[in-house]
Amino acid sequence: MRALILAGGTGTRFWPLSRRQRPKQLLELEGDRSLLRRTRDRILPLVEPEGIWVVTTRLLADSVRRELPEVPSSQVLAEPEGRNTAPAIAWAVASMPPDVRNEAVIVLPADHRVEEPEAFRRGVAVAVEEAERKDRVLTLGITPRRPDTGYGYLELGELVDRGRNVVAVERFTEKPDVETAERFVRSGRYLWNAGIFVFRGETLLRLVDEHLPGLARGLRSLEESPDRLEELYRRLPRVSIDYGIMEQLDSIATVPLECGWSDLGTWEALAEVLEGSPGQGASRGETVTVDSRGNLLWAERGTVAVLGVENLVVVHAGDATLVVPRNRSQEVRRIVSELEREGRTDLL
Amino acid sequence: MRALILAGGTGTRFWPLSRRQRPKQLLELEGDRSLLRRTRDRILPLVEPEGIWVVTTRLLADSVRRELPEVPSSQVLAEPEGRNTAPAIAWAVASMPPDVRNEAVIVLPADHRVEEPEAFRRGVAVAVEEAERKDRVLTLGITPRRPDTGYGYLELGELVDRGRNVVAVERFTEKPDVETAERFVRSGRYLWNAGIFVFRGETLLRLVDEHLPGLARGLRSLEESPDRLEELYRRLPRVSIDYGIMEQLDSIATVPLECGWSDLGTWEALAEVLEGSPGQGASRGETVTVDSRGNLLWAERGTVAVLGVENLVVVHAGDATLVVPRNRSQEVRRIVSELEREGRTDLL
Repeated sequence: MRALILAGGTGTRFWPLSRRQRPKQLLELEGDRSLLRRTRDRILPLVEPEGIWVVTTRLLADSVRRELPEVPSSQVLAEPEGRNTAPAIAWAVASMPPDVRNEAVIVLPADHRVEEPEAFRRGVAVAVEEAERKDRVLTLGITPRRPDTGYGYLELGELVDRGRNVVAVERFTEKPDVETAERFVRSGRYLWNAGIFVFRGETLLRLVDEHLPGLARGLRSLEESPDRLEELYRRLPRVSIDYGIMEQLDSIATVPLECGWSDLGTWEALAEVLEGSPGQGASRGETVTVDSRGNLLWAERGTVAVLGVENLVVVHAGDATLVVPRNRSQEVRRIVSELEREGRTDLL
Repeated sequence: MRALILAGGTGTRFWPLSRRQRPKQLLELEGDRSLLRRTRDRILPLVEPEGIWVVTTRLLADSVRRELPEVPSSQVLAEPEGRNTAPAIAWAVASMPPDVRNEAVIVLPADHRVEEPEAFRRGVAVAVEEAERKDRVLTLGITPRRPDTGYGYLELGELVDRGRNVVAVERFTEKPDVETAERFVRSGRYLWNAGIFVFRGETLLRLVDEHLPGLARGLRSLEESPDRLEELYRRLPRVSIDYGIMEQLDSIATVPLECGWSDLGTWEALAEVLEGSPGQGASRGETVTVDSRGNLLWAERGTVAVLGVENLVVVHAGDATLVVPRNRSQEVRRIVSELEREGRTDLL
């Protein structure tokens, strides 16, 4: 099998730690390996380094190559600019040699977390076998741990293969409201959509022809005039693989997984991962805490000191300091937008 | 008249902006002049620069001289170490030439705020005249604006001079509890003790002889062996002028003042001064505020960004960041103590 790692994200949600030049996938949010490096380590028992492709943006390509020196440099593909996931994936698959495209490829974001990589790999192996044997598209589904409104959900249909726990997907539902999410979780018939897909390369290219003809034409132009990449890539339609292809398919299946998966979408999600017990808080770097509880304190350099505060995220990174309540950390983009509006590119 | 500015304070309450080498009196907490410079400017219409003495510590003497270049360098006295206010004042007065000691001197801390310097100077002029005419000790008393438990109070006695609003002080009360403070303020018979005194120099030295014989002996040793300053100064008794002398006097008077005085004792007190209307909050330096209210944001360099928080003090200065609720900012010393305990002298 092969792997395609999506490493082009801009990751503003971890500002001020994440910046344009150093988005989330390049951060060492846990321990001393970046999320990208951890993603590569997670699949390494299944895929040789020569079997790994990475698609990222031109801005990040050098950093990505430094982070993954074992991956052949020519397999780190640099988009002239990000055009969402469908163009990135289709372009990368089209760039693979024909014999490679004939095999199963797992497509996975570079900035997720998996607590139990063994369980993750067992699920991937099932999906790969199913993708190759039946030439179908598989998506990894995560047994939901709470009614999270930040994730998409997969509605489960019939069991496709009891022995190997492969289940048909009836429907994709984008981020639901709280009541819907609670109903989904109670029903036991829904999984979180982890955005991790397995398919044969040729299958994906056929689905692009079928569902995204504009993208297919763009890819053919790129193939005919590789020297015009800069110009042609920027004309590809901006569309996600979920919306553009996966949600359009009649016959997609999932492998339900329990592997401590998280997309680490917010400082709050990171706090939950880092703290020893719920609400206890966590810290990184030099910190001083007096009469305070449940905070995520992050000092990239210097010292962060708090007194008498609870459930805050306090981050000092680069030349910026952020303070936000944990339960509002999903709104950090609003600060980034404000900085963009003010032209403070030095802080982005 | 002459002035003696007390500029030896260590000022930990504005950490991380204030540090050992740069305590509160050297900070530009309002506008672009340090509190020390503002103190000097405030009295300048009453006192020539040649009539100003400053007592500070050896650690700060160079900074103080740079800040007050008009004051003769020999009149900036550097204590080998701080021994509280009574030794500092007595030593400074004893260092003045005999003809100067015969005149009135106003002793005032370098780190207070006065919103209406004209009103302040009118009160000082009254106190100076009374000190010279009747050879008595005057303290400036501030009409209390709220039942503050952080100040000492003066209980008023008989009116000494109706025409010039000089009132006898019956009693000093150190920081009272809330109920007592409320009773004091309601009664209308109490003023805040601003720690600003006026007396003839010779009078002060006589009172030291009388009430602090140990200090008097120490000063005589110093006069006899000025080359042993280092050794002898460190042996002077640690005692405040309030406790050691003022509270011991039967006959002390005050000039009640309304001049927008504050000792700026906490970040909260500073916030109240800087904000346009109560609870509105204030900021200094580069800040970004989204859906937040009533915060004091202070970015010495870099940018401080907040989202969804209220009534916090957020300060980034030097290599440290502080977050504390406004109403607990008087506890910042606890963080400084923690840093001392951990030997983090780089942050002190």
